[in-house]
Amino acid sequence: MTATLHRLDKRTDPSLDPLMALVADDMNRVNAVILDRMQSKIPLIPELAGHLIAGGGKRMRPMLTLACAKLIGYGGTRHHLLSAAVEFIHTATLLHDDVVDGSDLRRGKRTANIIWGNPASVLVGDFLFSKSFELMVEAESLKALRVLSGASAVIAEGEVNQLTAIRRIDTPEDRYLDIIGAKTAALFAAACRIAAIVADRSDADEAALDAYGRNLGIAFQLVDDAIDYVSDADTMGKDAGDDFREGKMTLPVILAYARGDEESRAFWRDAVSGKRASDADLAHAITLIRSTRAVDDTLARARHYGQRAIDAIGRFPNGPAKDAMIEAVEFAIRRAY
Amino acid sequence: MTATLHRLDKRTDPSLDPLMALVADDMNRVNAVILDRMQSKIPLIPELAGHLIAGGGKRMRPMLTLACAKLIGYGGTRHHLLSAAVEFIHTATLLHDDVVDGSDLRRGKRTANIIWGNPASVLVGDFLFSKSFELMVEAESLKALRVLSGASAVIAEGEVNQLTAIRRIDTPEDRYLDIIGAKTAALFAAACRIAAIVADRSDADEAALDAYGRNLGIAFQLVDDAIDYVSDADTMGKDAGDDFREGKMTLPVILAYARGDEESRAFWRDAVSGKRASDADLAHAITLIRSTRAVDDTLARARHYGQRAIDAIGRFPNGPAKDAMIEAVEFAIRRAY
Repeated sequence: MTATLHRLDKRTDPSLDPLMALVADDMNRVNAVILDRMQSKIPLIPELAGHLIAGGGKRMRPMLTLACAKLIGYGGTRHHLLSAAVEFIHTATLLHDDVVDGSDLRRGKRTANIIWGNPASVLVGDFLFSKSFELMVEAESLKALRVLSGASAVIAEGEVNQLTAIRRIDTPEDRYLDIIGAKTAALFAAACRIAAIVADRSDADEAALDAYGRNLGIAFQLVDDAIDYVSDADTMGKDAGDDFREGKMTLPVILAYARGDEESRAFWRDAVSGKRASDADLAHAITLIRSTRAVDDTLARARHYGQRAIDAIGRFPNGPAKDAMIEAVEFAIRRAY
Repeated sequence: MTATLHRLDKRTDPSLDPLMALVADDMNRVNAVILDRMQSKIPLIPELAGHLIAGGGKRMRPMLTLACAKLIGYGGTRHHLLSAAVEFIHTATLLHDDVVDGSDLRRGKRTANIIWGNPASVLVGDFLFSKSFELMVEAESLKALRVLSGASAVIAEGEVNQLTAIRRIDTPEDRYLDIIGAKTAALFAAACRIAAIVADRSDADEAALDAYGRNLGIAFQLVDDAIDYVSDADTMGKDAGDDFREGKMTLPVILAYARGDEESRAFWRDAVSGKRASDADLAHAITLIRSTRAVDDTLARARHYGQRAIDAIGRFPNGPAKDAMIEAVEFAIRRAY
């Protein structure tokens, strides 16, 4: 008997297409729930929410719930409401993030806070967040509710943690990992875990799906943070150099600072504190990051977590669901190149 | 047999003391839950949350849950977690409201957004909101979860409705009532209703407590909005004239505008649109409101809803709980004088 080894980097051009094809039917149902539940008699609510929800997001998190359900052979529909709830939580945090960061561009479009103002973005975020809980209540699983409300609290904690780390050059890698583990990976983990919960699977299955989501989430965020220092402006549709100008302590900066000589460390101190934020400064930062291999090693870290995600689902049967979930990890990691 | 008639205005100096005494023991338990659950390893979270939570609020909403439980003779403790959850929802909305309104003073103290900035207020609000759902999940009542998540969505809708009505002189009284019914009364109603839910009482009892809370909430907000045009600066600890300067269409303005002559209507159009916002303009606004009896009639409307609140709980046994809840209504209405 030969073991099947699932290793990263086997494909040259990985894509999300297999994942999307796998869950296409379910996703139509989830999209119908999403469109239905973002309605309100207050016209500004669907208008603003629709800008972001209809605005070309990949629906990564609800797709993960649906894919995990396929992976474990769940045949019911209880996860459709929860999957929509996950997307609402994510959308609410995006609306609030853009207010917190003062962002003006997301997915290549003007942000809601720029178009409708911060107050509307805060309140419509609150609306979507409340709606997500209404959806969870409808799904009638106290256990799923516990997991998702816990994840929501952890996300908010992670965002506050990030806020208090901003412009702090002394932020260590551990704290950075705490932050992305909370602000990004917690919802990925919960999105995957709830598939096992609605299917009434064992604690071990729950933990395995949680680990897949959590490690994928960390890899995803690491790559996101790397892209901010390699993109030729619109790889991600977000402003290249945003993190740099905001003084956000992401891993590329943490590594470049740790590995730099005294002159470049002085540069980083100035840059992170906001004293150097010009385009020329950004160009210099990218040079330093390149010369210290800080992006390459950020991506190496991402591959490490990606491989852990893949190994976490080793216990489940091989087949199209697992293949698609493995390729999704590869896609998450390779999109930076 | 003589019927007991409960009418408003029987006492000359109503207070919240009987209500506070009635629920003092329960409230100690609820306060312990509140203090425990606002903790976090991220120090900014308890610091910012504590500023508002420890900052002299009356805990009106959790007190209502506890008082309603007494009124119907519930002897358990399941409402303690829910009562804390209600206060967390309320605190989260206050944090976000102050960001939305750009307020700098609440309960006589500087607001969190002024001290720690808007981003921190938005995120700590999100944290408390998530924590409120964790508490509700712990209470293990899907029905209570449904009521409170529904109320949260309605609150957010009401806030967006208010936001889109701002500086709109043509706002009718009906829309104003929709707004305060959603942004204030929905949580009062839910706070009361959940007492019947955890006690497993009839739909009729649930509806009666809901009606008490809803009508009290409307009365409460009407008086709040009246106070903004009568207070000698610190009756409420909030800035007198805030509503006026923000162009908020509250009932005193709606009535004064509807009843004014052409000259005063022109003044109101300018004032609401933001062209007249000086102290002299505020003084003139107060004169117009006084001459049209707009505050008196706002308070008359409040008495109407207050009486409805009192009548709603007529079905429950007379005794100290009912007496305290009636006096709380009287207090809510009389505090403007």
